[in-house]
Amino acid sequence: MKFELNKDLIAQIQDWVETENREALITFSTQVHWADIAEILDELHYDDAKFFFELLEEDIAADILKELEEDVRERLLSELSSKEIAEHLDNLDSDDAADVIAHLSEEQKEEVLSQVEDIDQASDIVDLLSYGEDTAGGLMAKELIHVYKSWSLLRCVREMRKQAEEVEHVYTIYVVDENEVLCGTMSLKRLLLSSERTLVSEIFNEKVISVKASTSKEDVAITMQKYDLVALPVVDELNRLIGRVTIDDAVDVLTEEAEKDYQMASGISENIESSDNVGVLTRARLPWLLIGLLGGILGAQIMGYFDIEKNAQLALFAPLIAAMGGNVGVQSSAIIVQGLAGNTLGHITLSKRLTKELFVALINGGVCSAIIFAVSFFMKDNLAFAQTISIALLCVIVFAALFGTLIPLSLNKYKIDPALATGPFITTANDVFGLCIYFYIAQWLLLT
Amino acid sequence: MKFELNKDLIAQIQDWVETENREALITFSTQVHWADIAEILDELHYDDAKFFFELLEEDIAADILKELEEDVRERLLSELSSKEIAEHLDNLDSDDAADVIAHLSEEQKEEVLSQVEDIDQASDIVDLLSYGEDTAGGLMAKELIHVYKSWSLLRCVREMRKQAEEVEHVYTIYVVDENEVLCGTMSLKRLLLSSERTLVSEIFNEKVISVKASTSKEDVAITMQKYDLVALPVVDELNRLIGRVTIDDAVDVLTEEAEKDYQMASGISENIESSDNVGVLTRARLPWLLIGLLGGILGAQIMGYFDIEKNAQLALFAPLIAAMGGNVGVQSSAIIVQGLAGNTLGHITLSKRLTKELFVALINGGVCSAIIFAVSFFMKDNLAFAQTISIALLCVIVFAALFGTLIPLSLNKYKIDPALATGPFITTANDVFGLCIYFYIAQWLLLT
Repeated sequence: MKFELNKDLIAQIQDWVETENREALITFSTQVHWADIAEILDELHYDDAKFFFELLEEDIAADILKELEEDVRERLLSELSSKEIAEHLDNLDSDDAADVIAHLSEEQKEEVLSQVEDIDQASDIVDLLSYGEDTAGGLMAKELIHVYKSWSLLRCVREMRKQAEEVEHVYTIYVVDENEVLCGTMSLKRLLLSSERTLVSEIFNEKVISVKASTSKEDVAITMQKYDLVALPVVDELNRLIGRVTIDDAVDVLTEEAEKDYQMASGISENIESSDNVGVLTRARLPWLLIGLLGGILGAQIMGYFDIEKNAQLALFAPLIAAMGGNVGVQSSAIIVQGLAGNTLGHITLSKRLTKELFVALINGGVCSAIIFAVSFFMKDNLAFAQTISIALLCVIVFAALFGTLIPLSLNKYKIDPALATGPFITTANDVFGLCIYFYIAQWLLLT
Repeated sequence: MKFELNKDLIAQIQDWVETENREALITFSTQVHWADIAEILDELHYDDAKFFFELLEEDIAADILKELEEDVRERLLSELSSKEIAEHLDNLDSDDAADVIAHLSEEQKEEVLSQVEDIDQASDIVDLLSYGEDTAGGLMAKELIHVYKSWSLLRCVREMRKQAEEVEHVYTIYVVDENEVLCGTMSLKRLLLSSERTLVSEIFNEKVISVKASTSKEDVAITMQKYDLVALPVVDELNRLIGRVTIDDAVDVLTEEAEKDYQMASGISENIESSDNVGVLTRARLPWLLIGLLGGILGAQIMGYFDIEKNAQLALFAPLIAAMGGNVGVQSSAIIVQGLAGNTLGHITLSKRLTKELFVALINGGVCSAIIFAVSFFMKDNLAFAQTISIALLCVIVFAALFGTLIPLSLNKYKIDPALATGPFITTANDVFGLCIYFYIAQWLLLT
């Protein structure tokens, strides 16, 4: 059952589409997982993907719709009637259904929702659409199994059978009181191991971790990871159970966040993939290059103020000084950004953190300085020159380390994404400051 | 029940430890989740952590042991007797138990395992220890619920009750044939909704995604994420069911991988946290700085060959050229590395990929070149000079983009981690090549 997407498979599918070999496509679609079909559709030309999609069975078509890349999905939706979209929504969990139509216009949403057959499903979707996309409410599904504290296990099993028809995966059984307030959970294991006459209130577990609907999706994901949860109940302001987030959505949040931080650190401003078109790729990358360009121009100005023609050999090491400042700054800021993202920074004071960073910088800077002293002395046979460069390098490394530590911490304090501080921003800032420090020290040591 | 680790809480706990207020510590430990206690122990001084740990109830102590940071855990283990460690292992799932003792010496392992009371548990741990740490076998647990194809649901429930005593979370019920070969799964929902006389063979689902024990842990995690699985069965070479990987472990793999790539891109070579000591932090960062330093020295050599004193103003823009090459290279390589990690690169040919990258580079390079042409002409009022810089910048950007695309793809082809190509490596290489291109073009345009 091992599936691998490769050029041959894509070519095979394309061939079936071109020869309108419906039978082969349908047989194929019953043999692989819907996530695989979605991956294939994302790779095909749109018209081919549409042809294949229209052949799919209703229930897998819905799953595939939610899994497709956004641009493919939106194009498909724009060609489906409201009735057809409504039918797909009926086959999805409430959270996926809400995601599928989230980007439609208000008018279209209304029209589609009015045609959803299952009225409970329609009302669940309306509910879910009211929460912010980046909150627990926006992640959660309404489908869950809940039992009342006062029930016997016999009644539980009977009622759970009814509820289970709506719920694809039963992970946790939530226990609520008569006001729908979340009181705890009951494990399936306990249910399996206890007699039918036992009351829920006798065996349920009162320790339950829940989040409010307004909790940010990052906090939801970190909470689920920390406590090893596969489902996390979501409550309203009165602690009433209103939904649950499942681990698959939390995993996607964690991956997305990690990708975003990585892209920021690499100087890419939008969430892009290599398969995006040239326009998108250009737009995501140009802003950071312009920042770098501005830094370079400032650097040139700084060197211009300094009488470079008389001390041309100093210019030889300007790129080195600038680059080292950038490298050290990126290292320091990356450690902070990662600590903030994973909530693993620990609780030491700012001054202790800076002292530690200072030590690391002094050791690394010391080693690099010693090397550059030897190399530059060997190259130019000029002690003052070698001194200048090595002292400047040490200062630049220490400055960059402290600066790289402080900036993301400050941004985070003011609720700005600290990842902004990494990559081109910190590199460029350190390039400029590094050149300032270099030439200031040179002026002081060589020219006086 | 919202738990937040802050300085006040740590101070409070420290106070309780110092005043030997055992009662307060024990009460506190029953009120919060064990993952929270582990987080607190990681923050405390070792002796305080040890004092608190020894007060904990057996079953949570075991969970905490597996959750602690490695250095704290190893120190604790070194002070526990084999008997005590064995007792903790009895309270853990087999995979966690194997992880806890994985770093002990062979001799210690043997001694501990000989004292584990539950002989099945001991043999499971021995089994698990035989798999590579980075494979599905190393991630999986032996605890799972499995039923035979030939059973009735009545028998299933009876047998599952027995098995459930050993299994903390029942996610999926695996169906095997008389040779223990994995045949499919049965959903709890189907079990709840069907009559007791139904046979497993009538209602089980034959589509099941599984992995071999030797599958890499990255593939396990990506498979679970793609197919939205909370548990993934692991089979041996004869397709016999031997264990299952649960989503919490897969989530940790995904996070670890993302962190590793991020650290590589930031020039950090080991998996470090800001709470690590100065020695570890220094060691993880120095190698990349030395690469940068080497690049800078090479750059200085290149500039030295060129008669810099006669064209000192060219040197003003050397840091800019080097920095832009680095920035573009990082962007290009990051897109490839991320595509490879998430398996989202798509299936286009190398020449198509390079053509696309070339277009992006030409647009971004064109914009940057135009700006630098205007700025440098305005600064120096010298057309040839402005031409030189802008043409060189365009060439450097195009070169860096193609180089940044090719290197990670090549590394990946030879099974080397493509993330190695990001960060300081690509920046430094592009710094050097950038300066070469710059001065070569200058020589050609200005000096002939």
